[in-house]
Amino acid sequence: MTSQGVEVFVEEEVAQEVGFRGLGREEFGRSVDLVVVLGGDGTMLAAARMLAGSPTPIVGVNIGGLGFLTAISREELFPAMEVILKGQFETERRMLLEVKVEGQEGSFKVLNDVVVNKGALARIVPITLYVDGTYLTTFRGDGLIVSTPTGSTAYCLAAGGPIVHPLLSAIVIVPICPHTLTNRPLIVPDSSTITLYHSSRDEEVYLTLDGQEGFPLPKDLKVEIRKAEGEVLLVKCPFRGYFELLREKLKWGGDLLEVKGRGEPCWSPLR
Amino acid sequence: MTSQGVEVFVEEEVAQEVGFRGLGREEFGRSVDLVVVLGGDGTMLAAARMLAGSPTPIVGVNIGGLGFLTAISREELFPAMEVILKGQFETERRMLLEVKVEGQEGSFKVLNDVVVNKGALARIVPITLYVDGTYLTTFRGDGLIVSTPTGSTAYCLAAGGPIVHPLLSAIVIVPICPHTLTNRPLIVPDSSTITLYHSSRDEEVYLTLDGQEGFPLPKDLKVEIRKAEGEVLLVKCPFRGYFELLREKLKWGGDLLEVKGRGEPCWSPLR
Amino acid sequence: MTSQGVEVFVEEEVAQEVGFRGLGREEFGRSVDLVVVLGGDGTMLAAARMLAGSPTPIVGVNIGGLGFLTAISREELFPAMEVILKGQFETERRMLLEVKVEGQEGSFKVLNDVVVNKGALARIVPITLYVDGTYLTTFRGDGLIVSTPTGSTAYCLAAGGPIVHPLLSAIVIVPICPHTLTNRPLIVPDSSTITLYHSSRDEEVYLTLDGQEGFPLPKDLKVEIRKAEGEVLLVKCPFRGYFELLREKLKWGGDLLEVKGRGEPCWSPLR
Amino acid sequence: MTSQGVEVFVEEEVAQEVGFRGLGREEFGRSVDLVVVLGGDGTMLAAARMLAGSPTPIVGVNIGGLGFLTAISREELFPAMEVILKGQFETERRMLLEVKVEGQEGSFKVLNDVVVNKGALARIVPITLYVDGTYLTTFRGDGLIVSTPTGSTAYCLAAGGPIVHPLLSAIVIVPICPHTLTNRPLIVPDSSTITLYHSSRDEEVYLTLDGQEGFPLPKDLKVEIRKAEGEVLLVKCPFRGYFELLREKLKWGGDLLEVKGRGEPCWSPLR
Repeated sequence: MTSQGVEVFVEEEVAQEVGFRGLGREEFGRSVDLVVVLGGDGTMLAAARMLAGSPTPIVGVNIGGLGFLTAISREELFPAMEVILKGQFETERRMLLEVKVEGQEGSFKVLNDVVVNKGALARIVPITLYVDGTYLTTFRGDGLIVSTPTGSTAYCLAAGGPIVHPLLSAIVIVPICPHTLTNRPLIVPDSSTITLYHSSRDEEVYLTLDGQEGFPLPKDLKVEIRKAEGEVLLVKCPFRGYFELLREKLKWGGDLLEVKGRGEPCWSPLR
Repeated sequence: MTSQGVEVFVEEEVAQEVGFRGLGREEFGRSVDLVVVLGGDGTMLAAARMLAGSPTPIVGVNIGGLGFLTAISREELFPAMEVILKGQFETERRMLLEVKVEGQEGSFKVLNDVVVNKGALARIVPITLYVDGTYLTTFRGDGLIVSTPTGSTAYCLAAGGPIVHPLLSAIVIVPICPHTLTNRPLIVPDSSTITLYHSSRDEEVYLTLDGQEGFPLPKDLKVEIRKAEGEVLLVKCPFRGYFELLREKLKWGGDLLEVKGRGEPCWSPLR
Repeated sequence: MTSQGVEVFVEEEVAQEVGFRGLGREEFGRSVDLVVVLGGDGTMLAAARMLAGSPTPIVGVNIGGLGFLTAISREELFPAMEVILKGQFETERRMLLEVKVEGQEGSFKVLNDVVVNKGALARIVPITLYVDGTYLTTFRGDGLIVSTPTGSTAYCLAAGGPIVHPLLSAIVIVPICPHTLTNRPLIVPDSSTITLYHSSRDEEVYLTLDGQEGFPLPKDLKVEIRKAEGEVLLVKCPFRGYFELLREKLKWGGDLLEVKGRGEPCWSPLR
Repeated sequence: MTSQGVEVFVEEEVAQEVGFRGLGREEFGRSVDLVVVLGGDGTMLAAARMLAGSPTPIVGVNIGGLGFLTAISREELFPAMEVILKGQFETERRMLLEVKVEGQEGSFKVLNDVVVNKGALARIVPITLYVDGTYLTTFRGDGLIVSTPTGSTAYCLAAGGPIVHPLLSAIVIVPICPHTLTNRPLIVPDSSTITLYHSSRDEEVYLTLDGQEGFPLPKDLKVEIRKAEGEVLLVKCPFRGYFELLREKLKWGGDLLEVKGRGEPCWSPLR
């Protein structure tokens, strides 16, 4: 790619294999102009947590098909990069959540979600939740998801949550299989501080970050979740907007022309 | 009540019956310091539309039990008014939506929701929706709700929508019985302009405002929905916060002390 | 088709146009060996109601794509008919529901569903329901669906109901946008007699049969729904079973080989 | 209680403490006329599995409030027993499911449900399911519940399943947080044989029986589930039918008189 006057660095561990210059993970945020992530949404989540707060924009390329985060497909890689390397791209700020566990130094950051859930053999986990110091309720069920708008199309969606536009200033709270049938997903302003703990006597409750890192969460230990200070900058796909991606990933059916032309349902499984 | 140095005006139509001075509806917004609504959430919705944009705060008293909008119950009326008349109250700004129908002069305002839905004997209404001029999708089903956060606990909730905190800057879009099973409630920033129209050949499609006013909506006529300029000021209940109201109305179960004391579910219907 | 020794009759009204011998609708049930329905699921519903109780099997061919009832697609018409005309086909009994309205002579039959729902401008319809003379509850919302297993993949599915195998001996009750959030779809044995009425003071409540015929339903008038005596015999698609149809219509993703080969999700929109 | 000419036996382990004659668990099914279970639904589930296939009826008394299985509350214990000991009671047959794991001797029985679900730190479990040897689909998500009608008001309900009348001859299949958004609960005839296995490469997948016993389920090991040969006989509550219990447990609101008297919603949280 030097033909385009671009210097390429690869993550140290894989650099040798592919014959490019290596760079330590922590260097990317301050030493490069653009980070290209090749992988799936999982790889993208890891990269985002690594680059949180850095002004370096990230391009996500899905080696499989399309992801909500990696909106450029393998086929589109070269045409997309040509446009992007000319600087013809827009970026989008995505908020992260910062997670602090009582009694632990430091904190974690997530781009999608923080999940507190029961162990496989546990039955019901009671999770008590406060918003800005005010008691909300004690959810009883399989667990609870606290998510960014970005994460609303990940695990939240499977648990019955709504689609939250990635630029909305909000935090999404979704109970997982709640036993109180009137419990519902709840959306609060992103200025909120969420505090939660579980009161399950058996210890089999876990805290999971972006579906990638997890560890047991002891009873009554408070977890504090708020909007993180830094954001990540995602490069927008030059070929496809957010709504187009929604339609494609969720199989909402054909584009508008098709709809207008035929005046007929694109796809309706019923009747 | 003049014993408290307060001058009382009543809506013209009922003034004579109850023996107070009457005031035209449109006068309340500019001539009084505080409006007290006695009724249900429906009465409150009508009052809010009337007072939209006025700085006069509104107190909602539910003559029945409790409403999401009328958070003071009949029993609490006198203690609440004593506190409020001393000026010891906080207010909360609630956004309204402004609705314009193509080819019609003027616009409507709603505090809860705008609903486009099928007539009783119609089958599927295709409703095409744009956000800020970008095509989202064509929903096919019984109809569509576009709602404020305030309206999220009204019809939206019955249609499967999430609870959206009333102070979130958002617009809520909830499809009603969508035939595309992957359609989901969608939350967008309140800066969005929603444009929608239906393309049902039979004419039985209706536009309803706050569940109170409605009229047939002809095919292909565009409806534009955006955040209204003025807001309404609701007086907060002195005895009960939003989350407490949620717990009570949705029967989420006992208060925190009960939960902590027994370490047991307040209410869980299962198992 | 006389080349195959088959005599063909067409519904009277269209017979002349297409140049075949015509037969009155009511004759088909007793005069022919096999009825072929060309259309969509709607046409099939009408044919099924017409042939209820007759031993004549029905083949459904969907002129568009595929339907839950018309499981043979346009492309498959000729290969399917060749197999079927040799008598190499299986049939499946499908139950119908019989609907009686208090004070009216006669009754209706439906293959899919009976719907009681609110008019477009009405708000909440209270519908009181008994099963075998025992009070169940009063549903409040947009309405109620009482359905056969066959109908479970039609309107019921959009209203949040489960998929009920067409051969299960059951009646499906699905509330439409219920305001009591703990109301849920309910499945009862097909020996049950369902009695319901609405107590809405405004008259805008409708009874709809198979989504095709409907009329206003006065307050307090009882509607009795039970399994109809006769059934219909559907010819099974020679190329595709029920589960295959479910996968295809509901876009559950690829066939088993694909799944096993790659050990990867066929389709998962999340993450 | 010998005053009523009744001989009382207590489970061996607790017999000494309470001063009654003890009996081995396995003896109850063949040596007594009536088993009284004091506890919650959990105790009842254990008793039901123990008595499966025995003609001895079981009375469930909930020491807390009311359960779906233990429909007699603590307060009702004595009045209920007086009626029951006079032989004035009806019983209800409830089916159980029999669960066989490939390569293991013997089988398990459950009154509620069999659950295959992911470990706390696992992400998505692909579970492939056959009905009577025919491939249904591969569910991807947190797991899958296979349940009796009795179990439909337990974990199934929290996972979004319907209420299935306990006397319906059916097996209920409910995916837990499925990532394919069109996956839905499915009800099949109770003559069906369900075969399933998971193909998750990481080993963290578990099989749980009635929410009480569980163990890791290795990849590709087939689990076969079908209706068990024996049933259990539950004594019906003399004071309360199934629908009354539903209304009470799910807080569907007041009884019919109240409804008819006021012509008003018993409970509707919305508007």
